[in-house]
Amino acid sequence: MTFEINDECRVLFERAAVVDGLDTSRWGREQTYRKLRDGGVTAINATLAVWDDFRQLISNVEDWYGWFDEFGDLIRPVREVEDVRAAKAEGRTGIIFGLQNPAPIGDDLRRVRLLHELGVRIIQLTYNERNLLGDGCYEATDVGLSRFGLDVIREMNEHGLLVDLSHCGERTTIEAIEASEQPVAITHAGPRARCDHPRNKRDHVIRLLAEHGGVIGANGYPLFLPGGVDATLGELIDSIEYLVELAGIDQVAVGTDFCDGQPREWFRWIFSTSHGHRPPERMPDLPDPHRQLIGFEDQTHFIGLAAGLLDRGYSEEDVLKLLGENWLRLFSAVWR
Amino acid sequence: MTFEINDECRVLFERAAVVDGLDTSRWGREQTYRKLRDGGVTAINATLAVWDDFRQLISNVEDWYGWFDEFGDLIRPVREVEDVRAAKAEGRTGIIFGLQNPAPIGDDLRRVRLLHELGVRIIQLTYNERNLLGDGCYEATDVGLSRFGLDVIREMNEHGLLVDLSHCGERTTIEAIEASEQPVAITHAGPRARCDHPRNKRDHVIRLLAEHGGVIGANGYPLFLPGGVDATLGELIDSIEYLVELAGIDQVAVGTDFCDGQPREWFRWIFSTSHGHRPPERMPDLPDPHRQLIGFEDQTHFIGLAAGLLDRGYSEEDVLKLLGENWLRLFSAVWR
Repeated sequence: MTFEINDECRVLFERAAVVDGLDTSRWGREQTYRKLRDGGVTAINATLAVWDDFRQLISNVEDWYGWFDEFGDLIRPVREVEDVRAAKAEGRTGIIFGLQNPAPIGDDLRRVRLLHELGVRIIQLTYNERNLLGDGCYEATDVGLSRFGLDVIREMNEHGLLVDLSHCGERTTIEAIEASEQPVAITHAGPRARCDHPRNKRDHVIRLLAEHGGVIGANGYPLFLPGGVDATLGELIDSIEYLVELAGIDQVAVGTDFCDGQPREWFRWIFSTSHGHRPPERMPDLPDPHRQLIGFEDQTHFIGLAAGLLDRGYSEEDVLKLLGENWLRLFSAVWR
Repeated sequence: MTFEINDECRVLFERAAVVDGLDTSRWGREQTYRKLRDGGVTAINATLAVWDDFRQLISNVEDWYGWFDEFGDLIRPVREVEDVRAAKAEGRTGIIFGLQNPAPIGDDLRRVRLLHELGVRIIQLTYNERNLLGDGCYEATDVGLSRFGLDVIREMNEHGLLVDLSHCGERTTIEAIEASEQPVAITHAGPRARCDHPRNKRDHVIRLLAEHGGVIGANGYPLFLPGGVDATLGELIDSIEYLVELAGIDQVAVGTDFCDGQPREWFRWIFSTSHGHRPPERMPDLPDPHRQLIGFEDQTHFIGLAAGLLDRGYSEEDVLKLLGENWLRLFSAVWR
């Protein structure tokens, strides 16, 4: 499933700032960074931590500093929106530090600011399960935000960190949208109406996000799309269309959930739980090697996404918004 | 022992950038920050850690972020020399994060960069005793730098951190001066020729420092001056005169070693050792309450120092150098 890439598309893509709302690939390998570069990806929300505790996070940050040196021709750090624009001008990919799980914060509110100082710009409030802040989307319960969760949001607002709600339970998602003084993100989730999966969001939640100025990144992970392991790029574009209809052209973007080069053990790890990493009860039956969307297999296929969006009749301006400008407007509103 | 503060001195002091090469007071108390402010101190190398490990350092950094909010009318963070100039313009005191001991680095070279990201700008290579980098000035041995010590210096050069050698053993001091690609500091030590104490530096070491573009901050701690607990501001100025004679007017500054508000237990702690903090064998017989120099008792007396320097016949330009401009030139050369 691919779309024809004509000259109009090529010219448009050349000037686009392409921003991926979530990329959780295996970092530190030149081939992944080269795919980002070859694919014309301007910036990504790069997952810095999933189950990692503070100690491990520090080590991951140190790894990244090393990679910025080692692969400096391909990637650069992003601390502000200007760094994304610079990445575009330099022909590099900007790396935005994002946490999928606030575990490194522990119960120390002051760590939010510390993480900001270390360059973190996006933090997801919960990852699948309940934590000190709220509920995850795989819990049987749906208890909403704790007092600590509210404090973390206030602290994130104060220091200019973007709140991400992709893996949160519904009440936690709703309450966080309402509690945050700044617009928030669902960096990588789809519409539940198109695929009934706990990782996808219901219409009223997506509308509420949009009403509060937030942005949702349509998720490109096959298992959260109707076609499952056989899902195609066309289905991702269906998601985008559905979301644009629901939330408006300014509130929709893309979060691929790319996991380039991740080994099978990593999937076991991220599908596990925080408590001693029990055997992964929820581990889906993944094909091996793991496959992303047909027609959107990795970071080199964003131009195909642009072609598909043009094919569906979106204007050039709208395609630019969906490919990255909506993310950048949100980042500008939130980051300092 | 005080000097007359005339109008010339007042006008000069008004425009001076006053920089203290080391202040290790008890942080977090408004009264200390107010003394700094009332004393017209533009910036200080504020000791962030002595025996503290990485975990404790993180907590200290978090404390400081809180104090920058709580006492924002009095203090501000310093990450570059422009921040010191801004502090002067704003009538606040700039806080430079400095480590007296590289213990938070552990054996992880990458942590140098991480500390830089957290805002640390000065690291002393050893504190009194031997560590993974080199020897301290209280060791019976004097083994010089380890390979790891050389690596840390290279990493500090790379990322723009100032090397401080005040508490280092002599060989470590000499080898670090020679190994560093950038000029280094002895932020707070005096001339051994005037007071034979392990914390003071011999003439040939001071000359070598100066030849490599480094700066020495004449130490204002009474026990390292000839008069001991009864030492006066005049003796500090004697040190400065001696150092200027030896090293030149551009290579000398001041490092007070002020310990404002520190309780007796703290002195026991810093005079102890890293290994389980044994009973402090080296603990000097300090008067209680602890006293700084007579005539230079705390951070409000810098104008008296200016008066004393003018009294000794230094030109206004030279006084400005000694009060702070020499530190700022060094910081400019080293920090990024």
